[in-house]
Amino acid sequence: MSRRIVGPEIERLIQLLAKMPGLGPRSARRAALHLIKKKEQLFEPLSAAMADALDRVRVCSVCGNVDTADPCTICTDPCREAGVLIVVEEVADLWALERASAMNVRYHVLGGTLSPLDGVGPDDLNIKGLVGRVAEGGVSEVILAVNATVEGQATAHYIIDQMAGMDVKVTRLAHGVPVGGELDYLDEGTLAAALKSRTSF
Amino acid sequence: MSRRIVGPEIERLIQLLAKMPGLGPRSARRAALHLIKKKEQLFEPLSAAMADALDRVRVCSVCGNVDTADPCTICTDPCREAGVLIVVEEVADLWALERASAMNVRYHVLGGTLSPLDGVGPDDLNIKGLVGRVAEGGVSEVILAVNATVEGQATAHYIIDQMAGMDVKVTRLAHGVPVGGELDYLDEGTLAAALKSRTSF
Repeated sequence: MSRRIVGPEIERLIQLLAKMPGLGPRSARRAALHLIKKKEQLFEPLSAAMADALDRVRVCSVCGNVDTADPCTICTDPCREAGVLIVVEEVADLWALERASAMNVRYHVLGGTLSPLDGVGPDDLNIKGLVGRVAEGGVSEVILAVNATVEGQATAHYIIDQMAGMDVKVTRLAHGVPVGGELDYLDEGTLAAALKSRTSF
Repeated sequence: MSRRIVGPEIERLIQLLAKMPGLGPRSARRAALHLIKKKEQLFEPLSAAMADALDRVRVCSVCGNVDTADPCTICTDPCREAGVLIVVEEVADLWALERASAMNVRYHVLGGTLSPLDGVGPDDLNIKGLVGRVAEGGVSEVILAVNATVEGQATAHYIIDQMAGMDVKVTRLAHGVPVGGELDYLDEGTLAAALKSRTSF
């Protein structure tokens, strides 16, 4: 706003809200007003929940997931198969895979991908931890669920090299047509991969 | 999420973030992860700013604006013309008019519109405060900047009735073509109003 029309505390709240993904300067103002209007129902509980989460959030020392416990809820879940690890780039990928509820296994979060141009080397990622978990034994399969990007694939190949000689099966996600997707809108690479990996009825 | 994969504190944070305007369940998860990832740069300052704003925010006893001071920054601004009051429904409308920077005056926030069906009568709005401010003297013009809805117009007429006999000019916003708008997309009512209120070059 051109002229100062609210106190510095609200101004600062708007500025910080605007840095959240999905909110811009305009929607941050709307969000701040909404919070102020719903003081008891939303502003107070949200502020308390933020302070609470901020106080308790930590990175799991086993898998790199974020949680309020260390080891995290997933790593300590006795109902999960411990012999299979799904390797993901980010915690968001872990959450996405959990929403699919396809496998009841554990994870390993790398914290990014190898990217020499950005100065991200193997030591900047949680790869040593992965190798350590596999070396400890008890892991029969490592599923590399990295993104299908150049960096993701380079990271996958680096990990495969590190696993060489270890008694573990390394697999990757299938390429193919997204469920519900229309062929007309798919790129040639995906179509070629889907044809190559065709399955029989 | 179907299975419990994060601690209750993070789960609760996601649930509350999802209640913000502009965020849904999915983007709330993204926002929570973003906060956790940018702990020092965003999560900590935002949590502090929230607690700070929550602690200090109050409703201006003069005009009904929200601010961290009472009377608010606008009411105490000596550079603003005190003789003109712009009456708005909500604080969001006040902020929108301030962005236009067209007039350097003061405001009066009603807190809604008359709506008998929803049980909102004159006593539920900040109308008495407006009449009191005008009765005190020093106000030469009241601009009714309520929305161009049935409820907004009904509220405007009620206020005009309350001002009857007082030495004050009551005006309303002009109807017309939005700046940058195309005639083709405008409704008949707006076009008729724009023609009726045509101005000479």
